[in-house]
Formats: sequence, C-alpha cells, structure tokens
Amino acid sequence: ALSSVYNQLLQGETGVFIQALNFSPQESKSFAVNMFKGQISTSQVFPFPSVLNEEQSQFLKELVGPCSKFFEEVNDPMKNDALEKVEEHTMEGLKEMGAFGLQVPAELGGVGLTNTQYARLVEIVGMHDLGVGITLGAHQSIGFKGILLFGNPQQKEKYLPKLATGEHIAAFCLTEPASGSDAASIKTNAVRSPCGQYYTLNGSKIWISNGSIAEIFTVFAKTPLKDEKTGEMKDKITAFIVERSFGGVTHGPPEKKMGIKASNTAEVYFENVRVPAECVLGEVGGGFKVAMNILNNGRFGMAAALSGTMKGVISKAVDHAANRTQFGNKIHNYGEKMARMAMLQYVTESMAYMVSGNMDSGATEFQIEAAISKIFASEAAWLVTDECIQIMGGMGFMKDAGVERVLRDLRIFRIFEGTNDILRLFVALNGFQVKGERKHCREHNCLRVHSALLMTLYLPLFVCVYSFSFLRASRSVSQGHPSAQHEKMLCETWVTEAHERVMQDIKFLRSGTSKQIFKNLRAISAAVVENGGVVSPHPLGF
Amino acid sequence: ALSSVYNQLLQGETGVFIQALNFSPQESKSFAVNMFKGQISTSQVFPFPSVLNEEQSQFLKELVGPCSKFFEEVNDPMKNDALEKVEEHTMEGLKEMGAFGLQVPAELGGVGLTNTQYARLVEIVGMHDLGVGITLGAHQSIGFKGILLFGNPQQKEKYLPKLATGEHIAAFCLTEPASGSDAASIKTNAVRSPCGQYYTLNGSKIWISNGSIAEIFTVFAKTPLKDEKTGEMKDKITAFIVERSFGGVTHGPPEKKMGIKASNTAEVYFENVRVPAECVLGEVGGGFKVAMNILNNGRFGMAAALSGTMKGVISKAVDHAANRTQFGNKIHNYGEKMARMAMLQYVTESMAYMVSGNMDSGATEFQIEAAISKIFASEAAWLVTDECIQIMGGMGFMKDAGVERVLRDLRIFRIFEGTNDILRLFVALNGFQVKGERKHCREHNCLRVHSALLMTLYLPLFVCVYSFSFLRASRSVSQGHPSAQHEKMLCETWVTEAHERVMQDIKFLRSGTSKQIFKNLRAISAAVVENGGVVSPHPLGF
Repeated sequence: ALSSVYNQLLQGETGVFIQALNFSPQESKSFAVNMFKGQISTSQVFPFPSVLNEEQSQFLKELVGPCSKFFEEVNDPMKNDALEKVEEHTMEGLKEMGAFGLQVPAELGGVGLTNTQYARLVEIVGMHDLGVGITLGAHQSIGFKGILLFGNPQQKEKYLPKLATGEHIAAFCLTEPASGSDAASIKTNAVRSPCGQYYTLNGSKIWISNGSIAEIFTVFAKTPLKDEKTGEMKDKITAFIVERSFGGVTHGPPEKKMGIKASNTAEVYFENVRVPAECVLGEVGGGFKVAMNILNNGRFGMAAALSGTMKGVISKAVDHAANRTQFGNKIHNYGEKMARMAMLQYVTESMAYMVSGNMDSGATEFQIEAAISKIFASEAAWLVTDECIQIMGGMGFMKDAGVERVLRDLRIFRIFEGTNDILRLFVALNGFQVKGERKHCREHNCLRVHSALLMTLYLPLFVCVYSFSFLRASRSVSQGHPSAQHEKMLCETWVTEAHERVMQDIKFLRSGTSKQIFKNLRAISAAVVENGGVVSPHPLGF
Repeated sequence: ALSSVYNQLLQGETGVFIQALNFSPQESKSFAVNMFKGQISTSQVFPFPSVLNEEQSQFLKELVGPCSKFFEEVNDPMKNDALEKVEEHTMEGLKEMGAFGLQVPAELGGVGLTNTQYARLVEIVGMHDLGVGITLGAHQSIGFKGILLFGNPQQKEKYLPKLATGEHIAAFCLTEPASGSDAASIKTNAVRSPCGQYYTLNGSKIWISNGSIAEIFTVFAKTPLKDEKTGEMKDKITAFIVERSFGGVTHGPPEKKMGIKASNTAEVYFENVRVPAECVLGEVGGGFKVAMNILNNGRFGMAAALSGTMKGVISKAVDHAANRTQFGNKIHNYGEKMARMAMLQYVTESMAYMVSGNMDSGATEFQIEAAISKIFASEAAWLVTDECIQIMGGMGFMKDAGVERVLRDLRIFRIFEGTNDILRLFVALNGFQVKGERKHCREHNCLRVHSALLMTLYLPLFVCVYSFSFLRASRSVSQGHPSAQHEKMLCETWVTEAHERVMQDIKFLRSGTSKQIFKNLRAISAAVVENGGVVSPHPLGF
C-alpha cells in the first residue's frame, strides 16, 4: 500500500520535480535517503536494532537506577529554574556520577557509553530537568564532541580527562549575531602568524550555552587559505580548541531567557586570542565539515531526551485526569488527547533508539534520520506538553505543577541546533543528494523551492517515522510482549491518521487552488512587510 | 456554495444527529444559532456594524491617543512581569485615565463607554501588556460587571463610583478547587439568618484574579431554597456582593504563574462572613444565570485585546524579517508565515467588532458568537505569537525581545473564562438550543457526543468566522478603501484553506476509518490511564 502511495506521488507534478533533481546514482544505505528515491531499503533498519550485548546492557542497568534516583531525590528542577543556575551540590553530584563524560572512553576517564546507552541516560535527564540537560548536552553533545570525533591523540589526551570529570566545562561556539542558520557566513576570524605557530583569533559569538562557565571552547572561525587549484586566497572555516586560559576570552552577562534558565547562555568574545597551531581541530579549512558533523552527531540525543520529557508529562496528565471529576464524572473527553500524547511519545522513542542503534552499528548515513527525529521530537514534545497544560486547566498554568516550566524549556528545541524550518530543508535537499540543485535553491527563490520540497517531503518523512515505529512494534509482536497489541494499535492509529493527512495535503498541493493560495500568501506577505505590519485599516477607521 | 456544503453535511450521519436533537422551533436572530439550523440569517450581521455615531467616534478618538501614549511611554511590561505586579505609578496613571471604570455610566463616575468603544481601548492594552489587561479586566469585565448588569439602583450607587475610579478593586469569585468548568458544583455556601437580614458565607475560591488586592467581591454560593412546586429544600446558587470590610475575608499568597504575572492571582477564603441581605445580586437562587451572563458579556473583550496582541506581535516579526539576512538574502520563506499571521489577526479583529457592534445594537443573542470569538482569538494569538518566536529564532526566546512574555501570558487565555474545550461544547449545545439533549449529554457519554458535535461544529463555526470577516471586507470594498483588495484577499485565502480543511475533516469523520480511529483512541487512552502513564515497555527493555 505504501509503495502504491509513493508511486502516486511520483506521477504528479511532484514527480516531475523529483526527476528534475536528477538523483545521484550512488548507492545509499540510509532508509530515508532511499525513501526519497522511492526505494525501500531495509538493511539499516530491519529488524529494529537490539545493539546492546549482555555486558553493555548490564552496565547500563546499573547506571539507570542511580541516575533516576539522583534526579528524583537530589536535583530540584523548580529551584534550578528560579535560581537560573544548576544548584552547586547538583553539579557536584552529576560530576561524581560521571555525567559530564558519558561518551568519553574509559581509558581517558569517561564512562565510555555507546550512543544507545547515552540515549537511555539522557532520556532520564530529559524527563526531569531540561535545563540540566542543556548544561550537560552543551558540554559533551556539542561542546567537546569535536575533540572526540576529530581530535588527534595528543588533543584527546590533553583535554578529555578533565572534560570527562567536569573539572573543565566545554562550549560550542558557532552562532554569531548575523549568522544563525547560515553558519557559513560567520565573521570571527583567525589569522595565522608568519611563523606558523599560532593563530590570532578575533570575533564574538552569541547564545553560547555554558558561555560563562566554560574553560574549553570549540570555536569556528574564518581563516584565509590558498586555493590549491587557482592559487587565490580564500576564506575558509577552521575549527579551533580554545582555552579560556589563553587570555583574551571574555563573556557577556547571562542571557535572560524564556526557559532552560538553569543552563547558562552568554555571548563569548575573542580579542586577539593567541591560539597555538596544535589547537586546530580537524583540517585547516575543514571547519564547516567539523561543525556539521558535531551537530549531526548530537541530534539523536535530543529525541531521546524529549521522549523522556513526554513520558514524564504524560504521567502528570494521567494523574490529573484520573483524579479530576467535573459534571459528576471523571473527565472522559480527555481520552482522545491522552491517546494522541501516547502515540507521539511512542513514535519519538522509536526514532530515538532506531537512530542511536544505527549509529552504534557503524552506520555513517544517519544524518537525515537524526534530523527527522529532532524535528519530530521537538514538535511532538511541544504538543504533548501544551496538551497536558490544557488538560490540567488553571493548575497547569501554575508554577507548582511543574509543567509550565517544561513548556518554556521546550520552546527553544524547535529553534536551536538547526531550526526546524532549516532542518526540513536540510532533510529534503540532502535526501535528494543533488548538490547543484542545493546551490540553485540557495541562490534563487527559496520560497518556491520550499513549497515544492514540502510536497515531496511529506511522504518520505511520514514513511520513515512510521517504519521506525512499525519495526519496533513488530519486534514486540514477534517477541510475544504482553504489550505487543497495544504497540501495534499505537502504530496503526498514528499511521492511519498521518496517511490521511499526507494524502489530503498532497491532493491539495497538486490542485490549482493551492497555486492561487501560494500566490495570495506571497502578495499578502509582501504588503504586510512593506507596510511594517498589518495593512488593513481598523474596522472603526482609527 | 456554502449552503450546498451545509446540505451535504446534513445528509451524512451528522444530519441524523442534528435531527435527533430536535431543534427548538423558536426564532433566533443569532447568525451562529441559525447556521446550526442550516439557515442564513443576516439581520444581525449585515452590513458589518458601524455603530458609533459622530459624537461617540470623536470621544473615542480623543481617548485612543493618550491611552496608546501611556502604554508606550509610562507602562513597562517587562518590569511589571519581573516585579510580578503592576508598578504603582502605572496603577495610579491608569486610575487617573479612568481605565478602571470604562463602562460605568458617567453619572456614577465612569467613562460610560459602549462595548465597541471599550473594545477599542482594550485592544491597546492587549497590544502592550496582557498582565495589565487582566488586572483591568478582572476588575470591570467580570469583577463588578454583575453590579452593572444585575445591580439594583441602590447597589449601583453604593458601589460603582469607588469602583470606577479604582479606589476599590473588584474580583469575580466563582471557581473552586473541585469546580472549574462545572460551575454548578460549587461548595461555598451562604445560609440565611432566621431574621432574614443577612447570610453567613463560608467557603473558598481559587485562582481569583485581583484576589489579594480587591475590596469588592462578586461571590457565588449555594443557598438552600424551597422549591415552590414541591416544597422541598434544594441548594441553588446565589450571587452576592461581598466587601472585604465585612470581616472574615482573607486570601492566600499570590500564585506563582507561567504568565500574566503582573496580575495578582490568589485564593480567597470566606469564613463566617456576615453578608447583609441587600447584597444579594439579582435573584436569590438566580446566581448561575448571573455568573453565565457576566462571563458571556465579558468574552467579546478578549477577542479585541488579543487582536491588539497579534497586531503588536506581527509588527515585531515584520521588523525582524525585514532586517534579517541569511544565505545572502532577506529570509523570504517567512513569507507564508507572515501572511497567515495577518489573516488570523484580520479574522479575529473582524469577529471582535462584529460582536461588540451587535451588543451595542441591542442584540441579546450574542453568546455563541462571543464564545466563538474567544476560542478563535485565544488560539489565533497563540499561533501568531509562537510563529513570531520561530521567525525571530534564538532572539525570540530571549526576554529582551518581549515576545516570550506574550506567549507565556497567552497560555491562560485558552483556559480561563471557560476553557476552549468546554466552550466548544457550549457553542454546539447552545447552538442546538435543546436543553433536554444537553442534560442527556452531561449524564451520558460525553466523549461520544463530543466527537459528533465536533463534526457538526466545524462548518457553522467556519461559516460564522468567515462571514464576519467577509462582511467587513465587503464594507471596505463598497466604501472604496484603498486596502479593500487586500482585505478581500485575506478573506478569500483564509476561507479557501479553511473550507478545504473542514471538508476534508468532515469526509474523514464520515468514513469507516474514523470510527476505527476513535475506537482505537479510546482503547489506547484507557490503557494509558489504567497504567498511570505510557504502557509500551522501553525499547531497550528497561
């Protein structure tokens, strides 16, 4: 049925668009990339991964209990939020547990976890305190991930031990005031000394998590580089490991934010910082690749964390609904809401562990799947938490219930580490794997391409998301789990509705009406922007 | 085209449901109520109301300028939010402007505004500071509205002058811990003294806006009353005017909330409060009617306030989009988002002034329209503000940008003064005007009725919302406004998409698939509630 649906998609004008993109003929193992080609390639996803061996599983079990206990008994999310920092004794406790070096190899002082093991612990953090989650994630998921992925042995030995224990905190410095999603446009620069032994770094970075507390920074800067073919000098991005102790590194006051207040966010300034040449991370001029790899590698953790967030929020909603009586009855029309919340959590959790499992099995093409999981998880968690507040009514709006904080914390997840808008484009463009077209898109009319992409994006996305959940449910069925039928139902219900939605959208997008709609939307938008706001005069005339 | 669509709806199983509800044959002037009968009754809505005479319009104009100036120059929304109260000098300034008695007759010390005039000023408040808006609204839109609507001449003369100047602040006391949407289930009680000269009031109320600062309370309590037919004693709700000075009135600490922090919210306790019999508001036993009338009368203001909120937020989004460059271009794919924001604002504004205009023209059947406008406005403002944050990216998440506060403030609007979930039922059930069926619904399976109602609700709702906007755009066209074509396009684009959505939903809801979906949702929900949370085991097994 799915492939017939896909064929239908290919026959429409979308198909023309896909053909025009001229698929790269090279083979890919990514399920998502293959979906974009209209091919179902299950080698990487079937069966649902069970990648932990007995020893790894046992080791993880021994961590899950104490970690949960710590977050239930020691960490106080409401207090962290109010103080706008993680309480000192909590930070110490996390360091003692090894929470700052979960994926650092054991021989360098870390816990040496696989991605799947890491996901399981991050899920616990996400269930209890996203502010703590960002503090930990900014440190190891992006802050020093570059050293783990691209560091040479000397760099690893020098930096990782102190980072693993949390003696040093790390931060990831990419974003600048004029450079958010368009990472290639950064202005921070590093000029090589004539002797070649150091670089002089100048520039400023904004919204840096751990910016005020970090000692080690992964910094991206433009460096002038000779093009080997033409001999011309060109600016290319290079990644550097920068120690605060180098001097010239300062930071602004902590930003006042809507949520994740417990985590520190600040501007970081680099003024004539003298960075030794041995602190170049990866290749000179290869910084863009380093940045993208770090971000791609870190995204799987977000789906795991938010799957935990949703699980916690659902418990609160159920607890309320089970005890609240109005009109003489338990409030039954929560039913539909509760079921939708459970489906979104199930799907997110399935994706999180599918991606981490793939990565642990040595897959190198997981970027699209990871981006899909980040988009889906951040939107699902937002919807689930918003709905929990609605179910709890006035109570949900009060700080004491602890759900409003979660909603505030969650708002940034649809924005940071790639806004969902940009990641949607990333998924589509990478899915097509046609670099020429990507450039074309950037230079020409982004909006028009965007609409067409959305059209082709829906179905592969939906099939991916569904498949991951389906494979998990199938595993439960084949293993004879008591909950297998429930999982099957979660899956089938979600896919039926999603399929309906996707087909309706495609039908509408293919219709003449939708062309007129997009034309109107552009005209309305242009008028509103030109007018600096709403165009229509007030109904009273003033 | 619209009526053919409606006929289609009536032919389906929804039609059976509508017929089963056995429409009350009495005539109604309400456009919305008539829509539910499949009749288009334009007497109350055509043409779009222009209810202000020259003098009223001139008077209002003279208020709009100073009011805007006050909110731009004196009031500091960010500071109010941080202080968790409206700054003292702002409160004084508002009192001097007459902002606490906008609809109190001039002869009793108020500004004597019509609903339309009131809406225009509330819109300015909503654009700048919803926390101040709630302080003012809890006072006059619900706090003492009962005295305006149901007070006898003595009560009006005694209370309104000091309320109008803000010397006394008012609060509306209906909600109790176990009684939110189900207002009839309150436990606060008032027992008449044997001499008949006073009532002894006991009970507690929660989430009372202005609860800590109010001097005058409109309190709803159960009073034992003899049924004139049967002679039995029965508890019925009575409304009372209660002065803090009566003694026995206390309050809890200010609630810590997600938003509208500038407004005070507290529990209020009544312990053996001796309330003189002349403080009964309306009829003894007629309190439920009093409460519902106050709430129905106050709702139109919310759409006006939130229309202002959206206008402000759209300006901020436009300002950002017009200045933000990424990938070498102004960010064009904001276009679609911006247009949708403008459409939602236009539709909300049209509804707000349609309802206030109707009320000013003496219409008595505006409750359904007012409820529709509250649902639509609170959801539209939420979407528009959320989208503004997404457009602004990281900046939108920072307190300095002033948009995250708006989103926090807005969260309660979908909950208070009737949750949107309950108001949807209210619209449907009142639209059908069949009291017997309403009782049936309450007592039997709310969820099943709910699904069917949603089905019948979509189309009339959509037609109402559309018609109000359409009539406004038509007025602009006939008056030859330069923006008339733009307004027409806002209207047409919104209706085309909404129509598509509604028809798809109806088609799906009529299908066999949807029956299975609802069955599944109930089963999933039951399992989740029974299990106290997510049922499916973790993909890792622990």
